[in-house]
Amino acid sequence: MRISELSERSGVPVATVKYYIREGMLPRGVASSATRAEYDDEHLARLKLIAALTDVRGLPLARVRDILSLIDKPAPDAMTTLGRAVGALPPYVDADRDDYPRARTAITSLGFTYDPEFSAVAQLDEALGALEAAGLDAGPETLRRYGDAMRSIAAAEVAPVAGMSVDQAVPYAVLGTALYEPVILALRRLAHHHLLAAADGR
Amino acid sequence: MRISELSERSGVPVATVKYYIREGMLPRGVASSATRAEYDDEHLARLKLIAALTDVRGLPLARVRDILSLIDKPAPDAMTTLGRAVGALPPYVDADRDDYPRARTAITSLGFTYDPEFSAVAQLDEALGALEAAGLDAGPETLRRYGDAMRSIAAAEVAPVAGMSVDQAVPYAVLGTALYEPVILALRRLAHHHLLAAADGR
Repeated sequence: MRISELSERSGVPVATVKYYIREGMLPRGVASSATRAEYDDEHLARLKLIAALTDVRGLPLARVRDILSLIDKPAPDAMTTLGRAVGALPPYVDADRDDYPRARTAITSLGFTYDPEFSAVAQLDEALGALEAAGLDAGPETLRRYGDAMRSIAAAEVAPVAGMSVDQAVPYAVLGTALYEPVILALRRLAHHHLLAAADGR
Repeated sequence: MRISELSERSGVPVATVKYYIREGMLPRGVASSATRAEYDDEHLARLKLIAALTDVRGLPLARVRDILSLIDKPAPDAMTTLGRAVGALPPYVDADRDDYPRARTAITSLGFTYDPEFSAVAQLDEALGALEAAGLDAGPETLRRYGDAMRSIAAAEVAPVAGMSVDQAVPYAVLGTALYEPVILALRRLAHHHLLAAADGR
């Protein structure tokens, strides 16, 4: 397809597509004449990935670049690659410690794998600290409730990864993590609203 | 308690406490002499609320002010007050339409209450649009999975609201929405990581 069609199908303006090409984030098209280049479905998929991360989730370009380089040059093992790619997504919290005792206790009690290198460990630690500071409950029973719900959601989400190569798994994990998060949070708020409205007799 | 103790117990610097008082976000203490004022547990609770919203969730002060005014001057009915207070939390999406067909279909299929005035409706609509643009599944079965998980979490969360007055319910709903969201998302990522690590034979 021509750049105009690529732009139309991705919803990304032509000038922005050209910018991504100049910045090395999107491969050049194949020259079909001196002034024309052809783009394919891989260009389209990559452009949609960039658009989803920048427009929808508002990621800084530097973070999007990190994710793209993990797709282009994955780390030696798949878990490290996936962990780093998901780690490029917000929230960005200080993650310079060797151990996160608050998160460790929670993760161990849920029977999850505790790996302080994985970004979500520091994120959980910070989130639990905020609950503690605000005097909100983060006891084992409460954590179990959230952990069980997330484990059942996650099981369905990771199932397709078994059949994927690393360069398929990274965009799947990054997009799946980033784009379902707002859905999950909106549905939680809607469930609250529904239950309160029902109790309110509406 | 003195302002120094208030600062220590809330973790908010004295200068910032004074700023919140000047801005009318925190009531003045009761003067106990020409140079001293006494603060009580209500000041402390309010300060913790402000700190949780600004520091932990990074809310702009204008949004925090909106939440505080809803506590001080609630709307005539509790549902409207709660809806507006939760609506002051991110994500901030365009919410100027009368109807959100994409969200309406999803919400109706889940059996939730569709109220286009409630901010999470526009948030869900935008999130579903992003899934569609990225070519990710948002079919009824997938939505049902997320909806069921959130409904079961939400049921436990709203239960205590039944015994609360509006001025107790607003901080509870706002803090509970804002501060458990990062916990939920971190646990989802940790569940992915655990399941993939287990499949990877670690």
